[in-house]
Amino acid sequence: MTGQAFYLAITGGIGGAKLALGLSRVLAAEELVFVVNTGDDFEHLGFHISPDIDTLVYTLSGECNLDTGWGRRDESWRFMAALSSLGGETWFQLGDNDLAMHVQRTKLLNEGLSLSETTTRLARSLGVKNCILPMTNDTVRTVIETEDGRLSFQHYFVRDRCAPAVRAIEYDGATTARANPDMVAALVDKNLAGVILCPSNPFLSIDPLLSLAGVRDYLKSCQVPIIAVSPIVDGAAVKGPLAKMMRELSIPREACWVADHYSEFLDGFVLDCKDHEMEAGISARGIDTMVTNIVMQTMNDRVRLARECIDLITRLRKRLPSLSNNRSRAKARTGT
Amino acid sequence: MTGQAFYLAITGGIGGAKLALGLSRVLAAEELVFVVNTGDDFEHLGFHISPDIDTLVYTLSGECNLDTGWGRRDESWRFMAALSSLGGETWFQLGDNDLAMHVQRTKLLNEGLSLSETTTRLARSLGVKNCILPMTNDTVRTVIETEDGRLSFQHYFVRDRCAPAVRAIEYDGATTARANPDMVAALVDKNLAGVILCPSNPFLSIDPLLSLAGVRDYLKSCQVPIIAVSPIVDGAAVKGPLAKMMRELSIPREACWVADHYSEFLDGFVLDCKDHEMEAGISARGIDTMVTNIVMQTMNDRVRLARECIDLITRLRKRLPSLSNNRSRAKARTGT
Repeated sequence: MTGQAFYLAITGGIGGAKLALGLSRVLAAEELVFVVNTGDDFEHLGFHISPDIDTLVYTLSGECNLDTGWGRRDESWRFMAALSSLGGETWFQLGDNDLAMHVQRTKLLNEGLSLSETTTRLARSLGVKNCILPMTNDTVRTVIETEDGRLSFQHYFVRDRCAPAVRAIEYDGATTARANPDMVAALVDKNLAGVILCPSNPFLSIDPLLSLAGVRDYLKSCQVPIIAVSPIVDGAAVKGPLAKMMRELSIPREACWVADHYSEFLDGFVLDCKDHEMEAGISARGIDTMVTNIVMQTMNDRVRLARECIDLITRLRKRLPSLSNNRSRAKARTGT
Repeated sequence: MTGQAFYLAITGGIGGAKLALGLSRVLAAEELVFVVNTGDDFEHLGFHISPDIDTLVYTLSGECNLDTGWGRRDESWRFMAALSSLGGETWFQLGDNDLAMHVQRTKLLNEGLSLSETTTRLARSLGVKNCILPMTNDTVRTVIETEDGRLSFQHYFVRDRCAPAVRAIEYDGATTARANPDMVAALVDKNLAGVILCPSNPFLSIDPLLSLAGVRDYLKSCQVPIIAVSPIVDGAAVKGPLAKMMRELSIPREACWVADHYSEFLDGFVLDCKDHEMEAGISARGIDTMVTNIVMQTMNDRVRLARECIDLITRLRKRLPSLSNNRSRAKARTGT
């Protein structure tokens, strides 16, 4: 990247963006690169909508609606009301300000720019200096197999408010999509200092990335610490439908399941004080742990947790030679 | 159409829409069918924009911005401001409410509906009961040859504010586009009572329609009175760039030139009191004239002029057998 040490933060929606904001206050812009899930992207009313990219860009630029966590602050809804009166689809809320993002993104994509180039331009326009990399420039779409049939992600998540019970989750297009080459370059960059999986839904925000050809291998062979912050606290999701999905998929709603889920490449795991009794079990899997308060309510919470994550990576990096051993142990345990 | 007598009003932009509104107050919805210019249509930011259809629909539905004559009343501009901050194109103003029309039209067109079907749906949503027929469902684009080169209509009209001198006007696609079959059916319908060319710019609003294969012939053989209201008063255009264009094209800025322009099919011409000295000359061309105040400032003006137009058609219809003679005379005179 820039010839100086940098961290890679992998993030999805609202929960991940909270830590992303904290990291952006702790690290200089050139020290922090984001990889963002695009499995939530969809085409709607002729627009290419990238909800997770927008959530991150709006959060980093101070444009985020802090009440909802999505969309823009000081938003108005005149377009939506007018569309409704014309018989248009209104299940996906598009604010008057937010709409500009979708219109301009779609225009740039139609002009031949990649999603990556488009994201850079739009983020720069809003004053975001960090490099933001969509996980791929190709089309990957998260699809939810539910009791009511197969639903595109936004139909499941927004239109149906996550009501139908989940049976399986698929990532359409992942087998042929190419991981963002800039992300791959970052993962093998000698200046990479560490990788942070933000507290995002594994199924909806992180697994779409992991499903891309080669990404797991790049993470497994990554020479720097990889840590994750738990998206589960005390058996409940900090945000979103994760706990409900885990129950429907007969998966234990526990932070240690998440650590386990990433164990083939994970070096460190950050879990909440309320889950401290899981620490030993996770450590026994060869994954370092850090117990702290991971529920980010204030900006101070975000900054403090970001600092603690960087500190954990720093500690892990000091005993770098043993990292690959840890991963080997984990891989042996999970049989991968 | 409906089995009852009806009038066909051909209209373009703001000037035409004023008389259209008057007609809609004088005639029942099923007695009044509109044909609208689509030569101004263009693709912008991914949207199919139909300015003249929108002007008519907004005017008839009471949604029109009365200050500007275009766009919607009580409009807000948050989208436009947000787009500007993202580096988007802002030379064509799109209000938050107005935008819904373009988004929904584009969506319906992309779903395979014709422009005609789309227009009907959108107009009905806003409570407009009149039948509104785009002149064609195919693509015709008015192109302005200027001293600065060839400009698409909206670039000439909106972006460049009609500044470049006009050398010629073309209607791209007109030779292959098919006139709206519903309009053709209306022109030969036995219940058609008369045709009114609203006071619209001949070059920009009426000639695109006349350039479609067969339309002139349908008008020439039309068995009911065809009248036009002058868009020129006392050497100036009532609205828009008409007078400037006429000067640049070395055409006399006179109402009688407009009557002459339509003479091959015109039976009656409505001109302003200020131009009364032209009456004799126009009558001598075999075109009946009516002199009145044609500048429509109030709703009363619109309704009064609409009534006068209907009255003129009624008078002309009473001596219907002579109409074709009039046209023959005009045709003989113009050598067509």
